[in-house]
Amino acid sequence: MLKSLPPTMSVHSKLYEGKAKILYTTDNPEVLLADFKDDATAFNAQKRGSILDKGRINCIISSQLFKKLEANGIKTHFIDSPAPHQMRVKAVKILPLEVVVRNIAAGSLSQQTGLPVGTVLKQPMVEFYYKNDQLGDPLLTSDRLLLMELATAEQVDIIKNLALQINEFLRSFWQQCGITLVDFKLEFGLDSQQQILLADEISPDTCRLWDTAETDPNRRVMDKDRFRRDLGNVEDAYQEVLQRVLQTVDSKN
Amino acid sequence: MLKSLPPTMSVHSKLYEGKAKILYTTDNPEVLLADFKDDATAFNAQKRGSILDKGRINCIISSQLFKKLEANGIKTHFIDSPAPHQMRVKAVKILPLEVVVRNIAAGSLSQQTGLPVGTVLKQPMVEFYYKNDQLGDPLLTSDRLLLMELATAEQVDIIKNLALQINEFLRSFWQQCGITLVDFKLEFGLDSQQQILLADEISPDTCRLWDTAETDPNRRVMDKDRFRRDLGNVEDAYQEVLQRVLQTVDSKN
Ligand SMILES: Nc1ncnc2c1ncn2[C@@H]1O[C@H](COP(=O)(O)OP(=O)(O)OP(=O)(O)O)[C@@H](O)[C@H]1O
Ligand SMILES: Nc1ncnc2c1ncn2[C@@H]1O[C@H](COP(=O)(O)OP(=O)(O)OP(=O)(O)O)[C@@H](O)[C@H]1O
Ligand SMILES: [Mg+2]
Ligand SMILES: [Mg+2]
Repeated sequence: MLKSLPPTMSVHSKLYEGKAKILYTTDNPEVLLADFKDDATAFNAQKRGSILDKGRINCIISSQLFKKLEANGIKTHFIDSPAPHQMRVKAVKILPLEVVVRNIAAGSLSQQTGLPVGTVLKQPMVEFYYKNDQLGDPLLTSDRLLLMELATAEQVDIIKNLALQINEFLRSFWQQCGITLVDFKLEFGLDSQQQILLADEISPDTCRLWDTAETDPNRRVMDKDRFRRDLGNVEDAYQEVLQRVLQTVDSKN
Repeated sequence: MLKSLPPTMSVHSKLYEGKAKILYTTDNPEVLLADFKDDATAFNAQKRGSILDKGRINCIISSQLFKKLEANGIKTHFIDSPAPHQMRVKAVKILPLEVVVRNIAAGSLSQQTGLPVGTVLKQPMVEFYYKNDQLGDPLLTSDRLLLMELATAEQVDIIKNLALQINEFLRSFWQQCGITLVDFKLEFGLDSQQQILLADEISPDTCRLWDTAETDPNRRVMDKDRFRRDLGNVEDAYQEVLQRVLQTVDSKN
């Protein structure tokens, strides 16, 4: 069933198969095993493909970032990584929100506001989208979020603050990698004690990452936009991001 | 150039032709003449047609509502109506915002949230959209509105309050017509003294109006949705709304 079963745990059944990961239950009901896939989708899964080695790369990058965030006082779902493409995580009830932090205008923000791609925002912006594939993950206003009871006003406040803290940490981390953090998507969930944990993944699938040294608008792209926009060299970009992350992590230990 | 020229004013040149109205300059630079057309468009002008007598009907309804709103302390651009399809208005600099007030879920709110059409909201909701045909009038969050400098935070506050006041008045007025006010779109502008005035129009083109006595989801529709959704009897609905408005206005004089 699984490519490689971690020796110390018995994996039960497939709980959920998403577009990028498969979640398995484990013998501990509070623990899940996330198996990262090479499958790539874009535009709400209308575009489908595969990025060689992506599962492993995203799992390693995510694991490193979650570890560092934990060390910086941010509570995450990360437990450990029993195999390069697998992560043991605390089971949470995912809030149906895609929390997007933006430092530089790009993607739908540019499309919907007319702000040119690359416009540096005066301050980081936290946006909420309704995590609902059927509805196409629509943008939420605060009123809509509360109307739909997707989270309480208190939870929204906490999440906004966490997102900004995470952004400060990540911005500086990626900067050390020679990478400009344009924007990224986070997911949060509630653990068995109703605590808010950072969940899901942080990877080139979920961040817009630009090579800081590169000014060409296509060549600088080091993230899933290469796949979305058919820019080529997708695998190379993911491998390069991984190398820089590992170098940066190593240089600090 | 104009179907009928009001005797007491000389009309200069066409200032702007929109989808529903033509604006003419007058000999007073602070006054414009709005000529309401029968042209109807929907889905960002992808669907085009004509609704017989709509220009006259919308102009009369708008004029009546602006007069009543003025009497209730809301400052509007309305001056007078020199002909049934024409309105003299104070020239304003329109803020590029479509201000939508919602009492009941319908339209894009239902589509994007999954809230069933007809869900009564616990409290009225004011939403802002970027008035920009090219971009498809996208929904704005407060952050996006301020980022784009479409209005100042103070103006947004004032407009939100005005929109809610206008909603209270209109809700009760339409109720007296036997019509349920589902939602509506407002435009505001700045006059030469930078005062915020309610501008544009309030009509079956810009409101969702449901016959209160009718429960059938298609038959109850008395607004432009009949045109948008090809429900038939478009002209009849507009005529019926006009009749009810005039009856309600008359019964109170
Ligand atoms: N700690 C966790 N506990 C429970 N679920 C989690 C946890 N972390 C992530 N998830 C969920 O795992 C699912 C699978 O991840 P994946 O990235 O493949 O999903 P997706 O296809 O992007 O999104 P979708 O949820 O729409 O399937 C996602 O729904 C994600 O929200
Ligand atoms: N008092 C006013 N002063 C100046 N402009 C006004 C005033 N009232 C309304 N307008 C503007 O008149 C224009 C014509 O109205 P109309 O409803 O035909 O426009 P539209 O096609 O719906 O929108 P668009 O502005 O995209 O053309 C609109 O741009 C509207 O904002
Ligand atoms: Mg995902
Ligand atoms: Mg209009």
